[in-house]
Amino acid sequence: MPYPDEAEGFQVDGPNSYTQFHKRFFQLKPFGDYDVDVKIEACGICGSDVHTISGGWGSQKFPLCVGHEIVGTAIRVGPKVTLIKEGSRVGVGAQSYSCGECKQCKNDNETYCPVQIMDTYGAEWPETGIVSQGGYSSHVRTHEHWVFPIPDALDSVTVAPMLCAGLTAYSPLVRNGAGPGKKVGIVGLGGIGHFGVMFAKALGAEVWAISRSRAKEADALKLGADGYIATAEEGWEEPHKFSFDLIVNCANSSEGFDLARYLSMMDVHGRWISVGLPEEEGQVIKAQNLISNGVLIGASHLGSRREMLEMLQLAADKGLKGWVEEIAISEEGLKEAMLRMKKGDVHYRFTLTGYEKIFG
Amino acid sequence: MPYPDEAEGFQVDGPNSYTQFHKRFFQLKPFGDYDVDVKIEACGICGSDVHTISGGWGSQKFPLCVGHEIVGTAIRVGPKVTLIKEGSRVGVGAQSYSCGECKQCKNDNETYCPVQIMDTYGAEWPETGIVSQGGYSSHVRTHEHWVFPIPDALDSVTVAPMLCAGLTAYSPLVRNGAGPGKKVGIVGLGGIGHFGVMFAKALGAEVWAISRSRAKEADALKLGADGYIATAEEGWEEPHKFSFDLIVNCANSSEGFDLARYLSMMDVHGRWISVGLPEEEGQVIKAQNLISNGVLIGASHLGSRREMLEMLQLAADKGLKGWVEEIAISEEGLKEAMLRMKKGDVHYRFTLTGYEKIFG
Repeated sequence: MPYPDEAEGFQVDGPNSYTQFHKRFFQLKPFGDYDVDVKIEACGICGSDVHTISGGWGSQKFPLCVGHEIVGTAIRVGPKVTLIKEGSRVGVGAQSYSCGECKQCKNDNETYCPVQIMDTYGAEWPETGIVSQGGYSSHVRTHEHWVFPIPDALDSVTVAPMLCAGLTAYSPLVRNGAGPGKKVGIVGLGGIGHFGVMFAKALGAEVWAISRSRAKEADALKLGADGYIATAEEGWEEPHKFSFDLIVNCANSSEGFDLARYLSMMDVHGRWISVGLPEEEGQVIKAQNLISNGVLIGASHLGSRREMLEMLQLAADKGLKGWVEEIAISEEGLKEAMLRMKKGDVHYRFTLTGYEKIFG
Repeated sequence: MPYPDEAEGFQVDGPNSYTQFHKRFFQLKPFGDYDVDVKIEACGICGSDVHTISGGWGSQKFPLCVGHEIVGTAIRVGPKVTLIKEGSRVGVGAQSYSCGECKQCKNDNETYCPVQIMDTYGAEWPETGIVSQGGYSSHVRTHEHWVFPIPDALDSVTVAPMLCAGLTAYSPLVRNGAGPGKKVGIVGLGGIGHFGVMFAKALGAEVWAISRSRAKEADALKLGADGYIATAEEGWEEPHKFSFDLIVNCANSSEGFDLARYLSMMDVHGRWISVGLPEEEGQVIKAQNLISNGVLIGASHLGSRREMLEMLQLAADKGLKGWVEEIAISEEGLKEAMLRMKKGDVHYRFTLTGYEKIFG
C-alpha cells in the first residue's frame, strides 16, 4: 500500500525519452506537523511540465513525475494544520514551500522568497535529499500554506489548470491594476492566456486578445475579450499607440517577436509583464526602446496564497471555468498529451482524470 | 542688432568638427502669442550636447547651436502669456514644445507627447522649417509652458544644470516613490547622478551611490548618500540582495555592464529606471532575468513642468545647488569643455558663463 510513506505515479527518466512514462512507487518526504496529504483526482498539464521533462529548461533531477495543477482530497492533516480540514477538496499549484519567515514571505510575495523556494516537482528537500514529485501521481504531501480549499461551485476538472496557469495570469493582472477604466492586452492565447482574457474581463478591464492570426478570435470573444489584434496583419499596432495600461505577455516563444511594436502600444508608464519563460535567447532591449512612453517591462512568477484564494472565489462568484480537454491518466494518455503540447495542439488545457481507476 | 528676429550663438558644422564652434547669427522662429524671449546669462553643458554634435546619436541638422540648461531673463512675453512675467529670471530645459492637447500633455506627461515633441535644439518647426537652436547663444524664444520661473534663493550658475540633468534625475525619483522608508540607488555619479543622490536624499529616501571605484565616495557622502557601492569590488551586490526599492541608472555607457547583478539587488517589484541613453547597443534581457524578484525595468524622459517647479522649490527650500565648474563661453572655452566631457573629466557639470561679455 503506497500511502502513507510512498506515492505511485508516472515518471520520466530523461529528456531523450520524455514521452515514455513509467508507473512507479516513489518516496514522499517525511510527514511534518504542517503537512497535508492530498489524494489526487485531477491534474492539469502545464507547459512547464513539457519544458522540464523535454530538457528545454536545462538539466533536471530524473526520474521525475511532473504535474502541478493538482486537485484532490485532503486525506490527512498534520497536528499543527489550521488552514485545511481533513476530507475537504483542495488544490496544489506549482510551488510547495518557501521559508515563511522573510520580508517577502510575510508580505504576500512568497513566490519570490529569496531564502528557499521548493517547486512542487523536481526540487530537493535539503534535509533528506528527497526530490519532490508532482501530480501525475496518486498523492502529494504539501505544507498547508501551499494547499488551497476549492470552492464547491468549481468542478475539479475545469478548476485544475487555474492552480498554475490561472494564478500565473491572475497575479500580474491584479498587481498591475487591471480593472475598470484600464485597457489590458493579453498576448498569446494558450493555457495561461485564455485565463488572462477571462480574468481581466472579470476584473472589469477593457480586454484585447493579441495573437498572430485570427484563428482564435471567436474563442477570444467568447472568453470575454472586447477586441482582437492579429499581429500578422499590416499596421496592427497603429490604432492602439499610447493606449494600453497593461499587457500581459503569455507567449511561450519569443521567436520573431518585434517587441518595439508591442511596446509602442503602451500608454505612458504602461506595464509589459511577461509570464512565459521561452526557451530561446532573450531580446536586446535598449533604453531608447523604452523612453518614448516610459514603459515598464517586467516578469511575474505565479502568485501568492492570498491571490490564489481571491482568484478561486472570483471564479466561483462569476462561474468561470478553464477550457479543458480531459485525458485519462496512463502511459498512452500522457504520451499523446506531450506530443500534442509540443505542437501547441490544445484548446486550451489538458486535465488528467481517471485517477481512481489507475491508482485505486 | 540680433534681437528680436535673430539670436547670436556658437554653432558646430558637423560631427567631424564638433569641437570647432563658430559664432554666428541665426534666425529665431516667428514670435507667437505664447512665446517668451529669454536673454541668456548661463547655460549648463549636458552630455546630450556632446552626443548630438559628435554624431553618437546619429545624424542631426547642422549647423547647430546646442545647450539646453538655460538660465536668463524674460525680456519679452507674448500677448497671451500668463505664466511668466517680463523681467523675471527664468529657465529653459531640453524640451521646448509639445501639442498641449493630447491625453499625455493634459496628464503631466508632456515629455511623452505622441503628437509633437520639439527639442530645445535640433528640432524643425513644421510650419517654417526653422531648426531650433540652443543656449550656447544670446537668446532663445520658447513657449511659456517650457519656461520656468527660478526661485530667488537659487543662483543662476548652480541652478542651470538642474534644468535638464536635475529634472532628469528628479522625475523618476518622484514617479517611482523615492521617499521615507525607501532604499534608493543611483548608478553613475556624473551630472545627472550627482543630482540623483542629492534629490533622493532631499526626498527622504535611504540613498546609495553606485559607482565603479571608490574615487567618488567622499563626494557621494557629501552629496547626501547614506552608503556607497563600488562595483569593481568582489561580491558588491551580495549584502544588498532583494533590498532596493528603486535604482535610477544614470550611467552614460552600458559597456561591460552586468545587468543581472544589479537587478539581483532589487526587492520584489522594485524598479530599475534608466535615464541615460548610451551610444552602445542595448542588452539582452530574458524574462528569466526578471522573474526571481519580479523587477520592473523602465526608462524616463525629462520631467513635466509641474515636476520642474516642484524640484526648483525643493532646491530653494533645502539650499541644494548643482556642483559646477564655470567655463567662459567662447570658441576656446567650448572646445575645452567638449574635450573634457568626452573624457568624463568634469565634477559634476560645466556651466557656461560670461554671456554679457560675448553677446553684449
